[in-house]
Amino acid sequence: MPVPIEYRDAAPDVRAVFDDIKRTRQVADVNNFWKYLAHDPVTLRRTWESVKEVMAPGKLDVLTKEMLYLAISVSNGCGYCIASHGAAARKAGMTEAMFGELMGVVGMANETNRLANGYRVPIDPMFEW
Amino acid sequence: MPVPIEYRDAAPDVRAVFDDIKRTRQVADVNNFWKYLAHDPVTLRRTWESVKEVMAPGKLDVLTKEMLYLAISVSNGCGYCIASHGAAARKAGMTEAMFGELMGVVGMANETNRLANGYRVPIDPMFEW
Amino acid sequence: MPVPIEYRDAAPDVRAVFDDIKRTRQVADVNNFWKYLAHDPVTLRRTWESVKEVMAPGKLDVLTKEMLYLAISVSNGCGYCIASHGAAARKAGMTEAMFGELMGVVGMANETNRLANGYRVPIDPMFEW
Amino acid sequence: MPVPIEYRDAAPDVRAVFDDIKRTRQVADVNNFWKYLAHDPVTLRRTWESVKEVMAPGKLDVLTKEMLYLAISVSNGCGYCIASHGAAARKAGMTEAMFGELMGVVGMANETNRLANGYRVPIDPMFEW
Amino acid sequence: MPVPIEYRDAAPDVRAVFDDIKRTRQVADVNNFWKYLAHDPVTLRRTWESVKEVMAPGKLDVLTKEMLYLAISVSNGCGYCIASHGAAARKAGMTEAMFGELMGVVGMANETNRLANGYRVPIDPMFEW
Amino acid sequence: MPVPIEYRDAAPDVRAVFDDIKRTRQVADVNNFWKYLAHDPVTLRRTWESVKEVMAPGKLDVLTKEMLYLAISVSNGCGYCIASHGAAARKAGMTEAMFGELMGVVGMANETNRLANGYRVPIDPMFEW
Repeated sequence: MPVPIEYRDAAPDVRAVFDDIKRTRQVADVNNFWKYLAHDPVTLRRTWESVKEVMAPGKLDVLTKEMLYLAISVSNGCGYCIASHGAAARKAGMTEAMFGELMGVVGMANETNRLANGYRVPIDPMFEW
Repeated sequence: MPVPIEYRDAAPDVRAVFDDIKRTRQVADVNNFWKYLAHDPVTLRRTWESVKEVMAPGKLDVLTKEMLYLAISVSNGCGYCIASHGAAARKAGMTEAMFGELMGVVGMANETNRLANGYRVPIDPMFEW
Repeated sequence: MPVPIEYRDAAPDVRAVFDDIKRTRQVADVNNFWKYLAHDPVTLRRTWESVKEVMAPGKLDVLTKEMLYLAISVSNGCGYCIASHGAAARKAGMTEAMFGELMGVVGMANETNRLANGYRVPIDPMFEW
Repeated sequence: MPVPIEYRDAAPDVRAVFDDIKRTRQVADVNNFWKYLAHDPVTLRRTWESVKEVMAPGKLDVLTKEMLYLAISVSNGCGYCIASHGAAARKAGMTEAMFGELMGVVGMANETNRLANGYRVPIDPMFEW
Repeated sequence: MPVPIEYRDAAPDVRAVFDDIKRTRQVADVNNFWKYLAHDPVTLRRTWESVKEVMAPGKLDVLTKEMLYLAISVSNGCGYCIASHGAAARKAGMTEAMFGELMGVVGMANETNRLANGYRVPIDPMFEW
Repeated sequence: MPVPIEYRDAAPDVRAVFDDIKRTRQVADVNNFWKYLAHDPVTLRRTWESVKEVMAPGKLDVLTKEMLYLAISVSNGCGYCIASHGAAARKAGMTEAMFGELMGVVGMANETNRLANGYRVPIDPMFEW
């Protein structure tokens, strides 16, 4: 089973990504996700560059993006991602009351997605614009 | 295959729900989802009451809730729900540029959820608070 | 794109499976699923033998088994499977009122599965027996 | 990480739901799922009212409903839900032999759902009624 | 509903990506996926750069990569992706007999994934290395 | 909670399957998956016969089949299956560098599957052949 690669043991290309993560996020160390991805420096670099671009504030603010990320992770049942993006969303300003409402939406969406499947509901012309 | 139940053919308990949907959403007619659920008046009523409660503005505004709903529907691949909640999110103020960023987050979350699974990344103690 | 393989065009090993399906189910022709699987006679035979064994009445009756099959297909969003197992469940005795209750369970299970994920609920000792 | 809310620490609105769960199910205490949902009393109440309505005996009996719930939970890979609804289904009368047949159906449905996807099987006209 | 953006109507940043796709894949025009993503030039560029890097021959050859991509798309039930990566895998050398075996693996993996979930099988120490 | 059934405690029909697994795979003992399935000898036998047929070398070699199996298991988030088929793929010759590329494909496929869903991309005529 792979072990996490710590900064002190990392090759220069991995260290460069770790440094950029720490600088961008203002953290003292990277979290386990990146230490495991470090086994594949190409995927490490590509994934970090993509996450950095996608999660930067733009037309959507960071809090909204982190809540979307968390909602998908809850829906998919990824334990690590629920923990890490739950922490990130809280850090970005999600209160427990907001988390409660987010969970309500995730639950209902998963329910009505199946109701629409099962009743084989055809798309209304007005939704086709 | 079930057919949609139109207002003119609906029983009083179904009409009551349709009326509340039309009043709450300020629309002239309900969309197909409700016309199909009407085959089961108990589920129709429960689902509408739940959706109304969950999607009302609270700690999260309506736009954020609709974007979360859309993101889950895209992730689950529910064609009807993508169309109907895509329309609802746009009506609530989602621009095409915001949709583009939302899709970026949905895509990356689905990617990194699998990277975390496959590398069997253990949860960092700092995420356990 | 593959085309369905009709009985008249089928090789003997495919015909043998088609004959067994028709005999077991008392139908005049096999449905499209089998006509497409016929492109791979090994998978056709294995899948049919497995389905026949799994769906035979045992400790669970045929109606219960078809409803379970339908519920999974709805949850997974498989359009073909919803149509074909919806028909099979109705043939086995599922009324529209039963279908409505089944859909209610499928919806709630998909909702509460996500609530349990998101709140990271630990398993109660009493459920570990 | 949220902690479970025990009855002694719960607010009156949460206690009211806990009391109804204990009365309805004839249990001495509620299971963890409800103790975590109690962080959001609105979702707690809505989810319990919905589960109570959906899982009450109707056109489908309680055992069939619990088996459907369990089958979806297994298919979705929700560990908590497999444990809790596995216990509930057994309490409602599911024997280990019945569980074995249920698992056979869940497995085959997940297999053939993908075979239908991959071969892009068109729906037979007879299934469109 | 978004319309595809054709080369003649595309902005320079979109054209640059389209040109690189056409050059890399030696095709006369890009397929619809890219024409829709073109509504969001940032996601278009990032997605293409990532796909190009991931799908280039490396320790795994192109055929193996395309079969993995197809297998995931079948498992997820993404209709567009099954069609496009089915075509790509065939172009890279996948015969119909190979597709049949791939489908057999996808089906069995989806089946046994659920059997492992439902029986709550603990990981063998020898798999933890 | 079921316990694993060891060879010494197994009935003759279970022992016969265990013997065939050990002989086919040249292992001293079967892994937990089979010891749990042994609670249902019919499913044990059917699952083993199917896995044996599907995973035998054919038009695809064993390494490719194990990598496909692993990719699906990662995508579905089945912890046991990721561990067991990760071990099987490595035994069949998958290096860590190959695993890294496999993970890259699994991640991108899960991302672009959602991009295709969300943009509701229509299938190109050239993919319909």
